[in-house]
Amino acid sequence: MTGIALLGAGRIGQVHAKAIAQAGATLVSVFDVMPQAAKAFGDKSGATVCASAEAAIHHPGVEGVLVATSTDTHVDLILAAAEAGKAVMCEKPIAPSLAEARRCINALGDKADRVFIGFNRRFDPGHAKVNAAVHNGDIGALEQLTVTSRDPYPPPLEYIPVSGGLFRDMMIHDFDIARWMLGEEIVKLSAEGTVAVDPEIGKLDDVDTAIVSMVSESGKQIVIINSRRAVYGYDQRIEAFGAKGMLISDNPSDTSVKWFGPDRFAAPDAYATFFMDRYTVSYRREIEAFVHMIQTGGKAPVTAKDGFMASYLAEAATLSNKWGRSIELDVTGLPTWSARTS
Amino acid sequence: MTGIALLGAGRIGQVHAKAIAQAGATLVSVFDVMPQAAKAFGDKSGATVCASAEAAIHHPGVEGVLVATSTDTHVDLILAAAEAGKAVMCEKPIAPSLAEARRCINALGDKADRVFIGFNRRFDPGHAKVNAAVHNGDIGALEQLTVTSRDPYPPPLEYIPVSGGLFRDMMIHDFDIARWMLGEEIVKLSAEGTVAVDPEIGKLDDVDTAIVSMVSESGKQIVIINSRRAVYGYDQRIEAFGAKGMLISDNPSDTSVKWFGPDRFAAPDAYATFFMDRYTVSYRREIEAFVHMIQTGGKAPVTAKDGFMASYLAEAATLSNKWGRSIELDVTGLPTWSARTS
Amino acid sequence: MTGIALLGAGRIGQVHAKAIAQAGATLVSVFDVMPQAAKAFGDKSGATVCASAEAAIHHPGVEGVLVATSTDTHVDLILAAAEAGKAVMCEKPIAPSLAEARRCINALGDKADRVFIGFNRRFDPGHAKVNAAVHNGDIGALEQLTVTSRDPYPPPLEYIPVSGGLFRDMMIHDFDIARWMLGEEIVKLSAEGTVAVDPEIGKLDDVDTAIVSMVSESGKQIVIINSRRAVYGYDQRIEAFGAKGMLISDNPSDTSVKWFGPDRFAAPDAYATFFMDRYTVSYRREIEAFVHMIQTGGKAPVTAKDGFMASYLAEAATLSNKWGRSIELDVTGLPTWSARTS
Amino acid sequence: MTGIALLGAGRIGQVHAKAIAQAGATLVSVFDVMPQAAKAFGDKSGATVCASAEAAIHHPGVEGVLVATSTDTHVDLILAAAEAGKAVMCEKPIAPSLAEARRCINALGDKADRVFIGFNRRFDPGHAKVNAAVHNGDIGALEQLTVTSRDPYPPPLEYIPVSGGLFRDMMIHDFDIARWMLGEEIVKLSAEGTVAVDPEIGKLDDVDTAIVSMVSESGKQIVIINSRRAVYGYDQRIEAFGAKGMLISDNPSDTSVKWFGPDRFAAPDAYATFFMDRYTVSYRREIEAFVHMIQTGGKAPVTAKDGFMASYLAEAATLSNKWGRSIELDVTGLPTWSARTS
Repeated sequence: MTGIALLGAGRIGQVHAKAIAQAGATLVSVFDVMPQAAKAFGDKSGATVCASAEAAIHHPGVEGVLVATSTDTHVDLILAAAEAGKAVMCEKPIAPSLAEARRCINALGDKADRVFIGFNRRFDPGHAKVNAAVHNGDIGALEQLTVTSRDPYPPPLEYIPVSGGLFRDMMIHDFDIARWMLGEEIVKLSAEGTVAVDPEIGKLDDVDTAIVSMVSESGKQIVIINSRRAVYGYDQRIEAFGAKGMLISDNPSDTSVKWFGPDRFAAPDAYATFFMDRYTVSYRREIEAFVHMIQTGGKAPVTAKDGFMASYLAEAATLSNKWGRSIELDVTGLPTWSARTS
Repeated sequence: MTGIALLGAGRIGQVHAKAIAQAGATLVSVFDVMPQAAKAFGDKSGATVCASAEAAIHHPGVEGVLVATSTDTHVDLILAAAEAGKAVMCEKPIAPSLAEARRCINALGDKADRVFIGFNRRFDPGHAKVNAAVHNGDIGALEQLTVTSRDPYPPPLEYIPVSGGLFRDMMIHDFDIARWMLGEEIVKLSAEGTVAVDPEIGKLDDVDTAIVSMVSESGKQIVIINSRRAVYGYDQRIEAFGAKGMLISDNPSDTSVKWFGPDRFAAPDAYATFFMDRYTVSYRREIEAFVHMIQTGGKAPVTAKDGFMASYLAEAATLSNKWGRSIELDVTGLPTWSARTS
Repeated sequence: MTGIALLGAGRIGQVHAKAIAQAGATLVSVFDVMPQAAKAFGDKSGATVCASAEAAIHHPGVEGVLVATSTDTHVDLILAAAEAGKAVMCEKPIAPSLAEARRCINALGDKADRVFIGFNRRFDPGHAKVNAAVHNGDIGALEQLTVTSRDPYPPPLEYIPVSGGLFRDMMIHDFDIARWMLGEEIVKLSAEGTVAVDPEIGKLDDVDTAIVSMVSESGKQIVIINSRRAVYGYDQRIEAFGAKGMLISDNPSDTSVKWFGPDRFAAPDAYATFFMDRYTVSYRREIEAFVHMIQTGGKAPVTAKDGFMASYLAEAATLSNKWGRSIELDVTGLPTWSARTS
Repeated sequence: MTGIALLGAGRIGQVHAKAIAQAGATLVSVFDVMPQAAKAFGDKSGATVCASAEAAIHHPGVEGVLVATSTDTHVDLILAAAEAGKAVMCEKPIAPSLAEARRCINALGDKADRVFIGFNRRFDPGHAKVNAAVHNGDIGALEQLTVTSRDPYPPPLEYIPVSGGLFRDMMIHDFDIARWMLGEEIVKLSAEGTVAVDPEIGKLDDVDTAIVSMVSESGKQIVIINSRRAVYGYDQRIEAFGAKGMLISDNPSDTSVKWFGPDRFAAPDAYATFFMDRYTVSYRREIEAFVHMIQTGGKAPVTAKDGFMASYLAEAATLSNKWGRSIELDVTGLPTWSARTS
């Protein structure tokens, strides 16, 4: 069975561990900077607890390394695992800064395509079905794309300063969705952020409500709509409009129960609480894709370059919002900012 | 323009009068047993107020007669209008008793096909679309039919004794829907009625909640579900299941507004209040069909025989419920009760 | 960890084995009449392969016994496991005949409440939510219940003669759903079966299309609608209508993807293929309930008496259809047929 | 009865004439530059055909004037009618240019509030219900507004050059919807237009696909999405997201018929063909509002200032798209362009 090392035994690491078992792979070794956490995890999962990330990576039987540590350690661990010849899967973002992300990809060289960045939403059954249909031409040429992404409630305030801000922390998922749906790069971007949910977030120099409009290489139009709070639940929708039709990946509901009362009609449990239940299946399918990548020796379904480009767009949106104007983007190689702005 | 005489200037007569105007026909004459009502109606509509039904029928310019009087007068007025060579439209039921209905049809002879019984639900756009699709073979052979019909609230208690009971007053519409969908006759029927809504209805020897299951000539299965009260609004649905698919005519909603709040999802104005708003379009289209029938000299879309058969089924259901057993039905000619029961 | 013995290593046994692992219980021992099947199963699951059912039941560490063998062996295995002091879960039906089921329950005595009959649909999240809401009074007094249950396609023809017929094999699930929703017994039943799907089924003396209408002790009305074939997928719906509202457990869909094209609107993957994917979660939750029952020493959520009553209704429906008339039911003790028929 | 003069007997004039009759008002006089059209219209409606607009305005019994002529004549006719002391209703836009619109409002002075600009979508039952709920605080403070508006097919190519372009001709409706929902002014706007539907439209120096993002005085975010072609029908949706919930005015469907076949689920006639059937009710309710305004002597529900502001936003979007950058807007008085751009 496919052997995997897990670096980082926190909440998302545990989600992955469960998915690894369900995918029929084996969690061979585990490392966490907090020995207690690693120990507890090892006891429960049967994985060997290692004293260092290096030891976990090089443990006998390890073919793939899953990086689920804090963002500032991503680059070093990706490079160590790749150097050891392992397939790598790393949580988003690839690095805490664009410069670091660029250094990582340059250092990886040919191995960059064997680093799988964990944009799990690509593996959501509804989103994936729409993506496949779009690329299959079911709605003709894609012309307008609307991505709505609203969290049920904001993160703890202490997380805000280390999050990198809404565009880098939250909207980065939607930038990846956009590139995945488009199949081409974004060349222009205009971001508007505001504080509508909690003034404390504003005091921490972040926004909690944002809209970004973008244009792609061939002129397709994209809108991303974000809020840090939606009282009706986790709101995750994609609308792809094309020459021959429209596809919507709507919010799934827990059950199909409908209630009809004096106030007429209601679906009492329409939406998921948050990403852990909304994307349970995505996390499982993502790991299956990683196991498949290990077994076949193939290319990552979401590459290090994809991870870089999502971060690049998040950076651009952060600056566009700060500067109050739209930005034209360079999309050659690993781009830096264009001098052109509008 | 096509000239019409209206007999009965009550609420439903006024609905028809408005539809006549919208259909581009002319209300020529009107009669009502209450002269005040007739006068008020004539002043508003411009129709000549006549002192007798006969006078209204024979008024110059009258080509069609619309009978919207009390049920006990239907037969005489239908016969008078038909004898005068007019096209006739009459509100359901055709007569207060099966014997009277039989007398009417026998007396009409060849003219029975020019008497249009006002089962307005056949003209509902949703129901009509399902009916057309079924008869077009869109779901292959029809196998099971479910008709749900629930009123928002019961009629006034004083109406119950003169209503003929739930099966003859309310379910008669659903019997007509069933025959219309099937395109063949019912040969077996089993009715169950109970009092769940208001015990006062039970004291008046009627039921307010009923289910009837039926079998048609070729073995198709039909269920009709009735209640005199639905707190969520007027509930009128048809489900047609066949070898190649299923068609549902669901309850239409006033608007497509959706509300998403902490209790998740709701469509605040899903359903119509009652038949006047639910079937507004049906009433209009029904009159258009009547005008068309007058102009073309063609057959009624719902004939006197159809009116008889719906009454026959209502009678059978009333007896099946009373006797506590199923009844086999004779369907030749204008049937009377079969000796066979099960 | 809770130890379980599995009797019967066929398809449904394998579904249960997976659910046992997910529920954190341990499959200790396994027996199957086909040694090859038992061996393969043991190799895969790690359970000890036993040479007899007795050996599997008495294997050290076994606290619960899961009976997933052919129907004719159910009673003996239930009794053997109960006698050994184990909690028992048995696939429906409890026995191949009512007489056998009665013998089983009489022999069980006090232990009948520790025998869990596997009516898995009670554990479907949507159905369970409606059931809880009904019993919580959310729609006031229940008045009318409609259960629609249509398979995507008929079973193999060779299965028909050993199935017991549609009412005992397929509709038995719906009889259990009805009793569960009502919280009281059925006192009158009228069944109509016909052959609409495949004439070969008729040649084997069975029906493939059926409607049953029923009345409960307090006068509630129930309709069950069955077909052995629905081209649009597995159709499993419950509609509960009450004094204060209506609840519907509708068919869930795989995703919430919607397609809008020139032919307007479609949800391309609305329904499950069949019970294995439709009720995946139910099977898992059912086993969790069994594990919980073992751990707490409590009463089965679906008892042997429940299993008997569903079979009793299936028997009544089979006879009602055969005799062409409705049947009044005795509901005291373990009832036999009432002399009264209607 | 309330007397109305109609200026312009074209297609939209005829829609209004029908609504006037249904609203119980009287069409007293009519004028059209094409005497044939006016004559035909007069014959059909019974209105007096006048040789000049002035004559129609001053015809005895006229209390309100409905301006449905070509855009270049709007200002002169509005002023003439207002000067004559009549209530005025004028089709959008108020004038062919912002300068003309400003001249009109300045000339109207106090009478500007008695000029009703025909943004009929405000009278759509679904849109109006959402608007009322938003202003009633049902979703708390409004934070993000998305308006989607797609025509089923583009206008004839010969119309493009005289249309003023997509922003002034089509999106102007959405600008008005935005201001109506917000209850405050737009202070920043960024427009992106492209040619995706028909290259011929591009050759005529217009766009057929556009997205505009905007910010309001208090920081609310608005997105408008337009396309000149949607193969699935006329697409007109509003999504209002706020602190306490979300409201959607979705596309209504003709009926509630659903079809379930081997390809699963479809609603065969989901959407309206175009504005004439989509907004039938709106046109009727709009005229009722005009009649009510005449009878009460009250303020127009959509004023000349509203008409100016929608045109101002259309102008800004046209320029933003042309210049490739966002524009900050002055919102005091009848604004001209701010020097500030971003």
